[in-house]
Amino acid sequence: MQNLEHKTFEAIQAELEFIGYYNLPNQNTEKIKRYAEKITKKDIVIIGIGGSSLGPSAIYEFLKYKKDFKKKLHLLESTDPLSLKYKIDRLDLDNSLFVVISKSGGTIETISILKYILTKISLQKENFVLITEDDSKLKAFGDTHNLDSFIIPKNVGGRFSVFSPVGLLPLALVGVDIDKLLLGAKEVRDSFFNKSDYYQKLMPKALLFSSLIDTQNINCLFSYSETLREFNRWYVQIWGESLGKKQPQTEKNIGLTPIGLVGPVDQHSFLQLIVEGFRDKTVTFIKIKDFGNDKKIGDISLKNLEALDNINGLEFSKLINMQCDSIINSLRDLKEIPIDILELERIDEQNIGKLMFYFELLTSIVGKILNVNTYNQPGVEDGKIILKKMLAKI
Amino acid sequence: MQNLEHKTFEAIQAELEFIGYYNLPNQNTEKIKRYAEKITKKDIVIIGIGGSSLGPSAIYEFLKYKKDFKKKLHLLESTDPLSLKYKIDRLDLDNSLFVVISKSGGTIETISILKYILTKISLQKENFVLITEDDSKLKAFGDTHNLDSFIIPKNVGGRFSVFSPVGLLPLALVGVDIDKLLLGAKEVRDSFFNKSDYYQKLMPKALLFSSLIDTQNINCLFSYSETLREFNRWYVQIWGESLGKKQPQTEKNIGLTPIGLVGPVDQHSFLQLIVEGFRDKTVTFIKIKDFGNDKKIGDISLKNLEALDNINGLEFSKLINMQCDSIINSLRDLKEIPIDILELERIDEQNIGKLMFYFELLTSIVGKILNVNTYNQPGVEDGKIILKKMLAKI
Repeated sequence: MQNLEHKTFEAIQAELEFIGYYNLPNQNTEKIKRYAEKITKKDIVIIGIGGSSLGPSAIYEFLKYKKDFKKKLHLLESTDPLSLKYKIDRLDLDNSLFVVISKSGGTIETISILKYILTKISLQKENFVLITEDDSKLKAFGDTHNLDSFIIPKNVGGRFSVFSPVGLLPLALVGVDIDKLLLGAKEVRDSFFNKSDYYQKLMPKALLFSSLIDTQNINCLFSYSETLREFNRWYVQIWGESLGKKQPQTEKNIGLTPIGLVGPVDQHSFLQLIVEGFRDKTVTFIKIKDFGNDKKIGDISLKNLEALDNINGLEFSKLINMQCDSIINSLRDLKEIPIDILELERIDEQNIGKLMFYFELLTSIVGKILNVNTYNQPGVEDGKIILKKMLAKI
Repeated sequence: MQNLEHKTFEAIQAELEFIGYYNLPNQNTEKIKRYAEKITKKDIVIIGIGGSSLGPSAIYEFLKYKKDFKKKLHLLESTDPLSLKYKIDRLDLDNSLFVVISKSGGTIETISILKYILTKISLQKENFVLITEDDSKLKAFGDTHNLDSFIIPKNVGGRFSVFSPVGLLPLALVGVDIDKLLLGAKEVRDSFFNKSDYYQKLMPKALLFSSLIDTQNINCLFSYSETLREFNRWYVQIWGESLGKKQPQTEKNIGLTPIGLVGPVDQHSFLQLIVEGFRDKTVTFIKIKDFGNDKKIGDISLKNLEALDNINGLEFSKLINMQCDSIINSLRDLKEIPIDILELERIDEQNIGKLMFYFELLTSIVGKILNVNTYNQPGVEDGKIILKKMLAKI
């Protein structure tokens, strides 16, 4: 085990040379901030899908309940005609900046929606900004029309791109403090590579999860706050798409299955299956220590409902954390389900930056131990080829 | 097998006597419609969680992209103080009717939020309506204050209650045609019990899923439309909470794990794990034949992006269904992942009624074959007891 740990850490260190996301916390953000400062439009609309939308959305949705953003972030992800119409009908198009994000530059959903939007508003620098690879066709298209572009480094994978311009630019545009975001990420990064706190947190967890690959390979993330609902979606992508792979040596299909849950709502849904179902799950709880909100349950006794007077005057932030603790304790009592707890100090940029870099690192480490290629996604290519053939026939 | 099928059908038929949801499609809706007609308030706000919110929300969200509802449905589900504040700040309280839904009448989330709302608006017939069991404490509370109440029959479980007043009342209030909803449900019900079409569809599928309990026990529902995102949440509850159980005879923990996916977005997330991960999954695709929308991709050739001119002028509804077909075909090519396809004719009340009753029946049949109690949830009790003890100490 000691040897495996040592080997794994060395392999991750070696990746610093060629996997780009590790070094994103150290980037210079001046260009992004300068661009964002100039923009007065109120609706920031991402046209992008997967790695191009989940990261910025996770951070925006985490912060929006707390911060009073003057601008709004919207996502146009899906080719569903009805949701597209519904969302576009609710935008003030003259007051919208469209942020077109596609690493490869040829994502079919993104280009379809872009072409649709171009039937509504003109192709001008004021209306569009692009985020893509330096040598993509999308970049060349943007240059032709004198659009601003921001670059996703080639060695940063889409699902690991939240701290690249993919996340930073749209978030800076709505008023997120992106330097604080990177500060949080950097704290985890440096601590891990210095073999300090986060090394102690991440390495044993990665070793445990990897050792359970054949038995308890469903990883539930039980986030006790609605502010983390979109973060869960981001987690599902990074975990599922990175670790669900054919192992090169053994040719075996393996993977860890991510499930995103939100408490307390999913106590009334998925919890029963955790408690009484197969012992094929681990559960990671996320708690927010300080919601920064002292909203209280009314100190009101209701006739016939006096049995619930024990919650009168209680802060909701205390109640939700007590609910979380009660479920943690009930699972601990079972002794058969591995659980761990992550605590966020508060709802701000630094804390979400830490959390997301933590999961990026955890994914990389587990991928290394499982000996899969964490950064590709060959499994989705076949569907793309089939679609291309279908399109050629119409 | 023939014998198992026969025995199962007989057992389900026997349940008609004591499991209430089977007969909900035949109920008289006059009282609900008369109440709904009187209400002029524009914001209909459900205070409820789990079985009290997921059903009505699934139907409302399915229809809202298509129908131009004059009234809006909101959910207050969570004790998260920030989402609570965020949502309540955006309500016009004077124009809101609060629909308090709790089968037992003592759900802690529901009563907490009710007590909070009572610090803002007065306890009057005009502001509140209750949906609960006939003899609950909540019903008694309502009677004391002369509030209107609608009754959830005792033999209708929370997660099977969408066709009871739990779903029908709030949906009628926003303008859903609840008779059409029941008509769809009844079509599936009658067809199944007459051993007609839906019997042929449901029984083999239930037998297959049950036979895969030890091998391919993760059931992905891949819905190709954003309109089905909330429906997926409802599916996760009914499937996970009904079938994740300790088997009474064997004392074994078993279950089928539900995963809700939305296409094409999750092609860029979970799909890789399906294609290359463990062969522990089945996939059910849901397609919508007729979106009732002919929105087209702009017929625009973009400089340097000419490779994507093949989508020019294509209807989005065609594209999304081609995307779905491409993934179906790519999984078929693998030959190792059981897949099936459900097709909805269009986005209307009847079709969602059919779909939801289909899944209720499928759940009941699988539960019967697996020999578990489909209708209880003993696994969540321990957490509630622990919470109660914690509350007693503060």
